[in-house]
Amino acid sequence: MFKFKITKKPKGSLARNGILQTPHGAIKTPVFMPVGTKATVKTLSKDELEGLGAQIILGNTYHLYLRPGEKLIKKMGGLHKWMNWDRPLLTDSGGFQVFSLTANKKYHANKEIKASVKIDENGVEFKSHLDGSKHYFTPEKAIQIQHDLGADIIMAFDECAPAHSTKKYFEQAMQRTHEWLKRCKKEHEKLINKTGAQIALFGIVQGGLYKNLREESAKFVNSMDLPGNAIGGLSVGESKKEMLKMLEATIPHLSEKKPRYLMGVGTPEDLLECVDRGVDMFDCVLPTRIARHGSFWTEKGSHTIKNEKFKKDESPLQKNCECETCKTHSRSYIRHLFVENEILGLRLITIHNLHFLLNFMKEIREHIKNDTFSQFKKEFKKKNPKKHNL
Amino acid sequence: MFKFKITKKPKGSLARNGILQTPHGAIKTPVFMPVGTKATVKTLSKDELEGLGAQIILGNTYHLYLRPGEKLIKKMGGLHKWMNWDRPLLTDSGGFQVFSLTANKKYHANKEIKASVKIDENGVEFKSHLDGSKHYFTPEKAIQIQHDLGADIIMAFDECAPAHSTKKYFEQAMQRTHEWLKRCKKEHEKLINKTGAQIALFGIVQGGLYKNLREESAKFVNSMDLPGNAIGGLSVGESKKEMLKMLEATIPHLSEKKPRYLMGVGTPEDLLECVDRGVDMFDCVLPTRIARHGSFWTEKGSHTIKNEKFKKDESPLQKNCECETCKTHSRSYIRHLFVENEILGLRLITIHNLHFLLNFMKEIREHIKNDTFSQFKKEFKKKNPKKHNL
Repeated sequence: MFKFKITKKPKGSLARNGILQTPHGAIKTPVFMPVGTKATVKTLSKDELEGLGAQIILGNTYHLYLRPGEKLIKKMGGLHKWMNWDRPLLTDSGGFQVFSLTANKKYHANKEIKASVKIDENGVEFKSHLDGSKHYFTPEKAIQIQHDLGADIIMAFDECAPAHSTKKYFEQAMQRTHEWLKRCKKEHEKLINKTGAQIALFGIVQGGLYKNLREESAKFVNSMDLPGNAIGGLSVGESKKEMLKMLEATIPHLSEKKPRYLMGVGTPEDLLECVDRGVDMFDCVLPTRIARHGSFWTEKGSHTIKNEKFKKDESPLQKNCECETCKTHSRSYIRHLFVENEILGLRLITIHNLHFLLNFMKEIREHIKNDTFSQFKKEFKKKNPKKHNL
Repeated sequence: MFKFKITKKPKGSLARNGILQTPHGAIKTPVFMPVGTKATVKTLSKDELEGLGAQIILGNTYHLYLRPGEKLIKKMGGLHKWMNWDRPLLTDSGGFQVFSLTANKKYHANKEIKASVKIDENGVEFKSHLDGSKHYFTPEKAIQIQHDLGADIIMAFDECAPAHSTKKYFEQAMQRTHEWLKRCKKEHEKLINKTGAQIALFGIVQGGLYKNLREESAKFVNSMDLPGNAIGGLSVGESKKEMLKMLEATIPHLSEKKPRYLMGVGTPEDLLECVDRGVDMFDCVLPTRIARHGSFWTEKGSHTIKNEKFKKDESPLQKNCECETCKTHSRSYIRHLFVENEILGLRLITIHNLHFLLNFMKEIREHIKNDTFSQFKKEFKKKNPKKHNL
């Protein structure tokens, strides 16, 4: 039920096209996965997501565990049925959220995690960001919750250290992540044997911003021989250059035959650079989050709809864009909706931004197929893609 | 271009089916018109509104005048084009909002309007609820703004006195409303002659909660021989019994051959009672506003989705409901969206409530057609419709 097949590998790049088979259908890679943290991609309906061509979406273990609770979702028939989404689903393990949301400080602050999170070899004690109640996650618990949610792909429980941690701390966190991965795999196999569930577990590479740690971590995670390998702890405050350097240290040690998933990335230019380095899967809140602040993407970068200059602009968000928003409404009208805090405004820009990124990935897949990927990348970079950063 | 034809009048009721021709298409009456105050029916897209079978929607002069300004909308091609809605549109004159929103107090407070609104024979000076800036509306100004917006049906500028005003004040406000109606008609005809716009002006009956004033006002408004007659100043704090009494005093004096529009009403049982008394058109923020607070309608009344009892409820909001929400999602999932303040929750209940009311009106039209309206009303009342009040 779970298979990955490479369909095209162009010369001069590590990019590849593939097909990832899951119990809920096939996914064409490279793929961007919209984030539906609390079992909904913010502002959008199921029909809109399908219309956008979203092949797979994400849910989040940490949030769904706290509310409404994984047992309730299991009782309702699992996450797919409960949210009425019958395409593939992936759940993040909650590791990232436990460390970032509950520590009550900016994720990339220049110190090691203290605050309300207590980590030991066995697991993590944390306080809920909702009500301060105490909870304890172990690798086993994170896997059990994800089995209750029942996504197609689940993630190992890892420790994602802040970007500016010491080398010593990065190494400790990495070692812990490796020990936890063994326990995740064991728990996962135990549950699979018990229930026969068709769920794939991915491991996560850590190692912070140290090349040798990234290499060590990649080798270890790869040696666990799971159906997919993810790269965590990047895009958390380091520079783009550092991110790509770490990626380059990691990728060669991850099996070519398995999908590689770079977590929490990113902008259009990030996707292009990382696909070029051999990444197959991405997720990021960026296109949906910036949309809710009124920022929309075009080929020329990021723009804010609240800008006075759009007041009388009868053109769509982006010329020749095929999304429902651009086919239906003008910048002038959408700007008005934003000024008035009307919900339709949030929806319209969310649709446009997701279309922009999903369509961009589709173009990337086509260029890989047609052996024109490197040229496409060169031309895109000429357009000053850095403007897509906020 | 603007015609009203009665297609059915059952015995034993003043209810009637009709067809109202407008430049943007025909409207089957009795009709409920969803409110799109700021050029958007809150949370919904154009496609969703069309899918719901909304025949005509409302915009509001007061809000659109303040932001983005009627001149901008005119420049963008008018309200229809700007919001991309090609079915009929009606704009309220702003009279109600000038008095209710800018007076900085509950609309139905037991005193005459003072606060920041100054009324004289010529017009109304008011402060914007947005920034306190001063503005002056005259009947002529209200008509000019509405011509710039360019809806199919526009409303006269009236003075809507609070429900508990003195008789003397109600009479003054009514007289002023009549004088203003003459000026509105004059300005409207002047503009029509100048531009050839295909716009219909409706007058508004006032008179507070006094039978003789209502009669006098109805006779006067009717004598102006406009394409439609509206009834204002009801459902503003008085009892249901008082409202129906006033309606009964008004209706006999309004031409049978013209559509009668009861402004700002109401619940399903209100619609039923008022259709029975000869009303053809309704608008109300109720179904969309209560939706955003998590209240949904079923035949059994109003329920709040946040209720703990819906946590594990796998059934749709209403059994056998044909709306997109009920075909797609369970109470359990929608409750979760509300608890999490997810926008999709607001959308799903808005769709359901509007479907409930629009479908209810469709049923009413069918029962009028089949001579079963009185029976339908009797049966509906047995189900304890008062529960639809909040």
